[in-house]
Amino acid sequence: MLEIQRLSTTQPDFEAGLAALTDWDDGATHRVEAAVGEILQRVRQEGDVALLEYSARFDRLRAETVSALEVERARRQAALQGLEADDRAALEEAAERVRAYHEHQLESSWRQEEADGTVLGQQVSALERVGVYVPGGKAAYPSSVLMNVIPARVAGVDEVVMVAPAPDGEISPMVLAAAEVTGVDRLFLLGGAHAVAALAYGTETVPGVDKIVGPGNAFVAEAKRRVYGHVGIDMVAGPSEIVIICDGQTDPEWIAMDLFSQAEHDEDARAILVCPEARYLDEVQTAMERLLPDMERSEIIRAALARRGALICVRDLAEAARVADAIAPEHLELSVVEPERMAATIRHAGAIFLGRHTAEALGDYCAGPSHVLPTSRTARFASPLGVYDFQKRTSLIQCSPAGAERLGRIAARLARAEGLTAHARSAEYRYGSGD
Amino acid sequence: MLEIQRLSTTQPDFEAGLAALTDWDDGATHRVEAAVGEILQRVRQEGDVALLEYSARFDRLRAETVSALEVERARRQAALQGLEADDRAALEEAAERVRAYHEHQLESSWRQEEADGTVLGQQVSALERVGVYVPGGKAAYPSSVLMNVIPARVAGVDEVVMVAPAPDGEISPMVLAAAEVTGVDRLFLLGGAHAVAALAYGTETVPGVDKIVGPGNAFVAEAKRRVYGHVGIDMVAGPSEIVIICDGQTDPEWIAMDLFSQAEHDEDARAILVCPEARYLDEVQTAMERLLPDMERSEIIRAALARRGALICVRDLAEAARVADAIAPEHLELSVVEPERMAATIRHAGAIFLGRHTAEALGDYCAGPSHVLPTSRTARFASPLGVYDFQKRTSLIQCSPAGAERLGRIAARLARAEGLTAHARSAEYRYGSGD
Repeated sequence: MLEIQRLSTTQPDFEAGLAALTDWDDGATHRVEAAVGEILQRVRQEGDVALLEYSARFDRLRAETVSALEVERARRQAALQGLEADDRAALEEAAERVRAYHEHQLESSWRQEEADGTVLGQQVSALERVGVYVPGGKAAYPSSVLMNVIPARVAGVDEVVMVAPAPDGEISPMVLAAAEVTGVDRLFLLGGAHAVAALAYGTETVPGVDKIVGPGNAFVAEAKRRVYGHVGIDMVAGPSEIVIICDGQTDPEWIAMDLFSQAEHDEDARAILVCPEARYLDEVQTAMERLLPDMERSEIIRAALARRGALICVRDLAEAARVADAIAPEHLELSVVEPERMAATIRHAGAIFLGRHTAEALGDYCAGPSHVLPTSRTARFASPLGVYDFQKRTSLIQCSPAGAERLGRIAARLARAEGLTAHARSAEYRYGSGD
Repeated sequence: MLEIQRLSTTQPDFEAGLAALTDWDDGATHRVEAAVGEILQRVRQEGDVALLEYSARFDRLRAETVSALEVERARRQAALQGLEADDRAALEEAAERVRAYHEHQLESSWRQEEADGTVLGQQVSALERVGVYVPGGKAAYPSSVLMNVIPARVAGVDEVVMVAPAPDGEISPMVLAAAEVTGVDRLFLLGGAHAVAALAYGTETVPGVDKIVGPGNAFVAEAKRRVYGHVGIDMVAGPSEIVIICDGQTDPEWIAMDLFSQAEHDEDARAILVCPEARYLDEVQTAMERLLPDMERSEIIRAALARRGALICVRDLAEAARVADAIAPEHLELSVVEPERMAATIRHAGAIFLGRHTAEALGDYCAGPSHVLPTSRTARFASPLGVYDFQKRTSLIQCSPAGAERLGRIAARLARAEGLTAHARSAEYRYGSGD
């Protein structure tokens, strides 16, 4: 048997049930906060010495110098050349598709001249140096390298510094190969909060960066939250989630497997199916029960579905869309007959997968958009990781003498109303009345 | 006499001197952290009751209900109608220019179809509800209302909720009028960390929002930092700053007044002049000494210049540009003969003011771009507040059956390499090999 919660929008306590299902406290525990605080401070003060000590302690990785933890190009090239041909082709095709998609996101500078010669505009430039954190160990995903590094490369970032922990010295060859395919500039076998500290503050060997992106465990998340402001960060990610809206016409096994593909990430992952047909929910549950024993990660799937899975029965598809918007999911699959129409009614989602043939898994690897998406209802205000995370803007203002007078009179008036007379006089000098 | 530091790039310790000048610890003190932590928790749990208690305690503002702290449209309209005609005209002209500038920043959705019918794209939508914090009391600036609210309005945000403290019940009529001009939907006389808490979590009377923007004191900044993740925030702002690069050909009084206009904000404000001519630095200093006694805010100006002001002598203008890039200032004035050429070499600045006629003060009020800009070297990775802060993106992926097979083969290969077999099978079902 498979345990999964059932909800219906006709229940009087539906909203409370939904809130309980989607609640996520992303605050760090005191233990994590204290540990991370100490690590950040020590790396900031002691640099490489502290890094070596933490690497030995947390990853059982002993090195004489931090330079010895840097992976040279030759080793990455060898990893790429050592892949099976089909793996290499898949990695390179995925990288190419992700690159092509992100080129649509490039922003350009603009300027516009007014009648009196005053020019306003916006100068767009790439970040200089970016740090990418890639988790290691059991969750070492080459796809994370593609999805974080390629948008930075497309933006034109000068230098991409990647860190990835290598517990006991082990690092996935696919991860090294992905670093090579995406042209990572420097790669250090460092992980955890101390790697974030090294990127944020710089050490003798690890260069300090301007922004840090990439997923990580609770210590990494807390470290990113703490260095935010000193450097930029992408987001503080919660557990992965999917909402599938189905009209009841898709093969139940497809939907069952889509729910599994989310649930197999980890025990906190959330997989939710929304459908107006109670009988279809039964069919999907039956399919899940039939398929589960064969799954390699069945125990994780079982635990995730029991803790955070749900089958939700709604009155109609319009209500399904409203439920999805309230959840603001990271991934939203629209397995319905007119997915474009429904997508146009959705306001809050990280990524939408339209139509029965679009499995969410395609987006994790190779469809094009980054798989780094806002979780835990942050799609209400946040976007997928994109080129825009690696470009920034500078406002441009250039007044002609006539414009300086025209604008100066407005500015001086408002400045005096605010009691800021140096502002007023600075504007007035430009048209001869500052004395 | 006027105290201001002199630096020269020919000094051996120049870099250390520059670092000391621009150092800013934006961390909150333990006292602020503890106080804010308690306020956030109480407002989250007790709602309106806690708000009323904090308003009475911090602003000496006693009200029976939070509704009584809401400013109705009629009162705002009356404030606008009560302005002097020139003040009203200045406010409305400034608002119109800010609106026109920001329309350039609107992003649109896009879709692109591939040869096999697969469609990728990006759906852009506005945030639903946004909170704008506007400081009150001595630093109650109507320009802050324009610069925070108008980008949200242009983005198409459904509802803008503004909060502004009214110590002893006093609120600037210009601030009320600016709320009317920009079409703020709801306005509450609430300030401090409890106002941020109300916007983040919602109370019985104050609606919870999706993102909070706007400047504030140390308590407000810490509260924003703490609610980040639950809602979006714009940035955690440090003190205001200007770097002026001058070739020595601008009237020294103009430059002196521009430095004053920055320094008059508060005693932490930073005003820095960079010039290749030592004699010109002397002339500007003499002009400052002559002009200072006449300034209304001379004591603030004097303190800011002594603490954080500097006159920096460089070898040439190219070096001046490099010094500015290292500072990554909020405001950069290029008072030189070919400002466009120099601007193109600048990578890190919030806003650039080109040419001798473009006083920075114009940007504070009415040139067009928002005056909410990245401070404390965050221009390395952050942008001015803009329409993009109030829009968000959703990735769109729609596979044709042929695309599902083409992409599914790549995804399945990579998923198996990562050990995520449910991902692989979910993709494989779509082309008939998932069993």
